[in-house]
Amino acid sequence: MNNAIILLSGGLDSATVLAIADSLGHACFALSFRYGQRHFAELDAAKRIATTAAVVEHRIFPLELSAFGGSALIDSSIEIPLQPVEGIPVTYVPARNTIFLSVAVGWAEVIGARDIYIGVNAIDYSGYPDCRVEFIKAFERAVNLGTRAGVEGNPFHIHTPLIKLTKAKIITKGIELGVDFSQTVSCYAADEQGRACGKCDACRLRARGFIEAGVEDPTRYQHA
Amino acid sequence: MNNAIILLSGGLDSATVLAIADSLGHACFALSFRYGQRHFAELDAAKRIATTAAVVEHRIFPLELSAFGGSALIDSSIEIPLQPVEGIPVTYVPARNTIFLSVAVGWAEVIGARDIYIGVNAIDYSGYPDCRVEFIKAFERAVNLGTRAGVEGNPFHIHTPLIKLTKAKIITKGIELGVDFSQTVSCYAADEQGRACGKCDACRLRARGFIEAGVEDPTRYQHA
Repeated sequence: MNNAIILLSGGLDSATVLAIADSLGHACFALSFRYGQRHFAELDAAKRIATTAAVVEHRIFPLELSAFGGSALIDSSIEIPLQPVEGIPVTYVPARNTIFLSVAVGWAEVIGARDIYIGVNAIDYSGYPDCRVEFIKAFERAVNLGTRAGVEGNPFHIHTPLIKLTKAKIITKGIELGVDFSQTVSCYAADEQGRACGKCDACRLRARGFIEAGVEDPTRYQHA
Repeated sequence: MNNAIILLSGGLDSATVLAIADSLGHACFALSFRYGQRHFAELDAAKRIATTAAVVEHRIFPLELSAFGGSALIDSSIEIPLQPVEGIPVTYVPARNTIFLSVAVGWAEVIGARDIYIGVNAIDYSGYPDCRVEFIKAFERAVNLGTRAGVEGNPFHIHTPLIKLTKAKIITKGIELGVDFSQTVSCYAADEQGRACGKCDACRLRARGFIEAGVEDPTRYQHA
């Protein structure tokens, strides 16, 4: 059973996760979501990354989360913060990773994949509760109780290969595996050309990562 | 915090759950899914039930699960079984309740609901693993680790008021609460008018329930 599903946002982390899953010999199925993001630049990035990695299949699954609102990432009336904040920021999307992983499990069960990869990270991250390993482990347990595969003794494994890495180490790992980070978009407020704002939390974490890794930052900025 | 989300399929069970949540004084938000069902009769039923119950809001959330396939309920090339089967039947939809509950949690977090009601039942049911209380409890634990509400000490509760009831007892309870079961559609293969096949697992469980409850069966059948 070699098929694996990789959640692919189009950012730096998930591009690295895809390269890791590929390096482990999986047949990679990439899954992205059109969930009402403010811009499509990250989905364009996901398409480029999936094509370069020659995945078996790349699906962009539509999810109308913007109908609910409740997050700066999917509701343009809430401003993206340009300064670090205490606690969980307004860019948190309610239950996002729970929903994304649930859909991934549904697809995995159909294609006979038991390995699901997600690029969550508990070091250089934005403080989202659904990026923590406690959540991932609890979710994995739940789906193995609630799916045919799980109850028939063929459990799902949710892999978080970046969970303990700094952004700099993720970048180093990606470079080792040949990831072209110029294809990736991390910015919460990228323009239509995929150029980054340079100010949001995602931009700050990314830029610092390249500096700490000693790797030239290939990010294209709106105000170069 | 009185808002509650009720998963409303349009069947007998979820109509009863909605009546129970309403009787407990919740402001009820009903959530249905257009996930690639073979027929829309159950969504039409859900609309009728939600209207009769005067819910605060009824959303029909689109989910392209039929793009994955893997179940007789969403793939018309797989036949609905007309005889009881051993184990998990082909009508099982991979990760369905995990996905439905995840979306419910996302909406709940936005509208400030902490109570989510689902009509799963472990007695007269089709053997689906995601209808078991072990799964529901594990899922509840996961979302309380993976959401802002959960980590900030305002946890979600997933209520399964039918879990230990026979179909007959569910019907008796629904009648007590004034549910009009003629509005509900349980059949896996209902026609466009919502008339039931009388042969599938869902029809068999339902028909036996009315007999055991000593209640006249209001179901309209295709072959009356």
